[in-house]
Amino acid sequence: MTEPLKIAVAGLGTVGASTVKLLTEKAELIRQRTGRRVEVVAVSARSRGKDRGVDLSTFRWFDDPVAMAADGGADVVVELIGGSEGPARRTVETALETGRHVVTANKALIAHHGTALAKAAEGRGLSLAFEASVAGGIPIIKGLREGLAANDITEVHGILNGTCNYILTEMRRTGRDFADVLAEAQALGYAEADPSFDIDGVDAAHKLAVLTAVAFGCPVDFANVHVEGIRHVSAVDFDYADQLGYRIKLLGIARRLDGGVEQRVHPCMVPKDTPIAAVDGVFNAVVAQGDFVQRVVFVGRGAGAGPTASAVVADIVDIARGCRTATFGVPVDRLSRLEPLPMSARQGAYYVRLMVVDRPGVIADIAAAMRDENVSMEQMLQRGRAPDEGVPVVLTTHDTDEASMQRALAVIAAQQSVLEPPRMIRIESF
Amino acid sequence: MTEPLKIAVAGLGTVGASTVKLLTEKAELIRQRTGRRVEVVAVSARSRGKDRGVDLSTFRWFDDPVAMAADGGADVVVELIGGSEGPARRTVETALETGRHVVTANKALIAHHGTALAKAAEGRGLSLAFEASVAGGIPIIKGLREGLAANDITEVHGILNGTCNYILTEMRRTGRDFADVLAEAQALGYAEADPSFDIDGVDAAHKLAVLTAVAFGCPVDFANVHVEGIRHVSAVDFDYADQLGYRIKLLGIARRLDGGVEQRVHPCMVPKDTPIAAVDGVFNAVVAQGDFVQRVVFVGRGAGAGPTASAVVADIVDIARGCRTATFGVPVDRLSRLEPLPMSARQGAYYVRLMVVDRPGVIADIAAAMRDENVSMEQMLQRGRAPDEGVPVVLTTHDTDEASMQRALAVIAAQQSVLEPPRMIRIESF
Repeated sequence: MTEPLKIAVAGLGTVGASTVKLLTEKAELIRQRTGRRVEVVAVSARSRGKDRGVDLSTFRWFDDPVAMAADGGADVVVELIGGSEGPARRTVETALETGRHVVTANKALIAHHGTALAKAAEGRGLSLAFEASVAGGIPIIKGLREGLAANDITEVHGILNGTCNYILTEMRRTGRDFADVLAEAQALGYAEADPSFDIDGVDAAHKLAVLTAVAFGCPVDFANVHVEGIRHVSAVDFDYADQLGYRIKLLGIARRLDGGVEQRVHPCMVPKDTPIAAVDGVFNAVVAQGDFVQRVVFVGRGAGAGPTASAVVADIVDIARGCRTATFGVPVDRLSRLEPLPMSARQGAYYVRLMVVDRPGVIADIAAAMRDENVSMEQMLQRGRAPDEGVPVVLTTHDTDEASMQRALAVIAAQQSVLEPPRMIRIESF
Repeated sequence: MTEPLKIAVAGLGTVGASTVKLLTEKAELIRQRTGRRVEVVAVSARSRGKDRGVDLSTFRWFDDPVAMAADGGADVVVELIGGSEGPARRTVETALETGRHVVTANKALIAHHGTALAKAAEGRGLSLAFEASVAGGIPIIKGLREGLAANDITEVHGILNGTCNYILTEMRRTGRDFADVLAEAQALGYAEADPSFDIDGVDAAHKLAVLTAVAFGCPVDFANVHVEGIRHVSAVDFDYADQLGYRIKLLGIARRLDGGVEQRVHPCMVPKDTPIAAVDGVFNAVVAQGDFVQRVVFVGRGAGAGPTASAVVADIVDIARGCRTATFGVPVDRLSRLEPLPMSARQGAYYVRLMVVDRPGVIADIAAAMRDENVSMEQMLQRGRAPDEGVPVVLTTHDTDEASMQRALAVIAAQQSVLEPPRMIRIESF
């Protein structure tokens, strides 16, 4: 019989506790699936006394996860501390330096330091696995890197943040405003007390940067992800979206084009009949487009203790089975650097909402600003009348480029009859 | 440098030709992903002269795939002949007997002989891989066996036959009848000249039997799949389904229950807001429910040369990388035999359509037959009036068991006022 695979778990929040529970309760199932016993030998967290609903008494306890990584006697260190720097980073670096495989759910860490960590791991023949860092329980890293390994992937996009998707779904269903629904999400535990990482798109951007590297075999390049959050999406936008045949989603989109690669996170309008439009609430979805397989869609829970632990243990199972894959699908020294395309090069259609004075000539001025930038209007809606007062005007464009659209918006914003900053949502028709 | 992995391809239909094309065109990508060259060395098909759009001149040609399996010098034999017996089976058996890995897209073969072939493969330390046999390019076998390896799977269901899904989608969209849409599907090449394997549910049942084994770690048990096709779904059923809030799909459903396992393929009504309801046309979808991950949905093209070749080559990539997994997730001698549950034990709701004489007392007789079997009606619709002539009556039930429902239907069918055999579609609310 092969030696057991020894696991040390750093970080015992809900995901850490669920991971320990899973590895303990399903020890026999995992042994059958891997041909090897998998045993937790050490754990580390800040507070030893806390009741986490799992028996930790048989594991070595470490107050310091870095010390555990170095001296815990583990074959695999599971990092569930979070954050791109500090103890999480030092734990992972120490584990790799001392010859231990790493499994992590830490999207920020991989987004910021993924390439360097992969180099450290591959140089020592170790695994650096991060299935749990993107889209929770959905096996999307494995799906892209192994399931679609025969394909050149040209695009990957998805709903990568469950908090934002929950808020957008509730806004649509109830007609309530952003602040109101955010407060409720916080009360329900779906949003953090400081929600900015989620609602400003940073969390989705971390995940997108990881997906991009795996999909295209390029170094992780978080710095070049264009990021916009959902704070400016308003209740009224959902009514217009519905009328126009769209749903509003915060998407991460990575696209490989002739000149390089686009990476962007922002609110989008997507046609109601695309599969992703129907993915509501806390669910995540990832869509990949490959040259042979064509379109594949993965949907599931993007967060939560159970789904995340499922992904963490899937990575451990691969290590136990002796399955080693290059961290990002191809060895780190073979990753091809792809030119980051600026957001100004984005091609597509736009939805624009304006608050204007209801007075003859106002629409003509707006139309002229668009025409001057060669932006072609598709439709225009003005609801109701209120002479000499503010009324909302909504318009959509045909495909154009972002730079032209932004110039036109700047001109429009400066017009005296335009009362509030224009709001723009990009339309994506996949 | 490791030796190249040598591939022999048996069967050069569209999938075989696409597989050869993929392996040839993407040789460099595959080498980077696997660290090893993968080379086609031999091919076999019935007709050597045929133009298949790929250059076969550098490969050894075999008229007999069995001879190629034995003497082709390959490390991996790819079986794309099809059929559960005959040359396909002998090719696979010979490959395993002579120490070669097998990759196959053959659902019928795995459904009928999967357990025995897995035994032969595992006994010799060989891979028997069949990602392409279920749901085309969707990496569902890998997803279940590896991605969700930490879970006890309690249910897997899906749209497993693109031909049926295309026909049902067209019937709904156009209001046309089954025979009409089938003829069109045949003209378009979406349905075979002899369509019975598809439309009678046999193809979906093969795939379901394979999925069941992988999901639950049990021997393949095709003989105990309950199979009904889509011939009796009528244009009018789509109108009623729409009114009642459902879509009609041919589903394969495998469910692990206390007493054993259900495996069934039949038309279903599913609520419009479930993700699977929106999967239209030739797309397939598979939904898995695991205890930790909860619900995961995979959607993609279930057939076609490109998607199927993508799945075939993903299996080859795993072999090239030296990743070995037990054929059905756990070693074949550890598979747990699960008691097959009879269809009569199915619990759920029902939709029933009757053609009855429009005359007082008819509905009362039907209601009495249901009451006598303890089947509780949820709603009843009778559209229009035609005294003393035939009118359609539609009813739905609350949850009941299949045996009671069948007994009630037999009594109703025997009533003089019931003019045609009752049509029943099971309602599934996942």
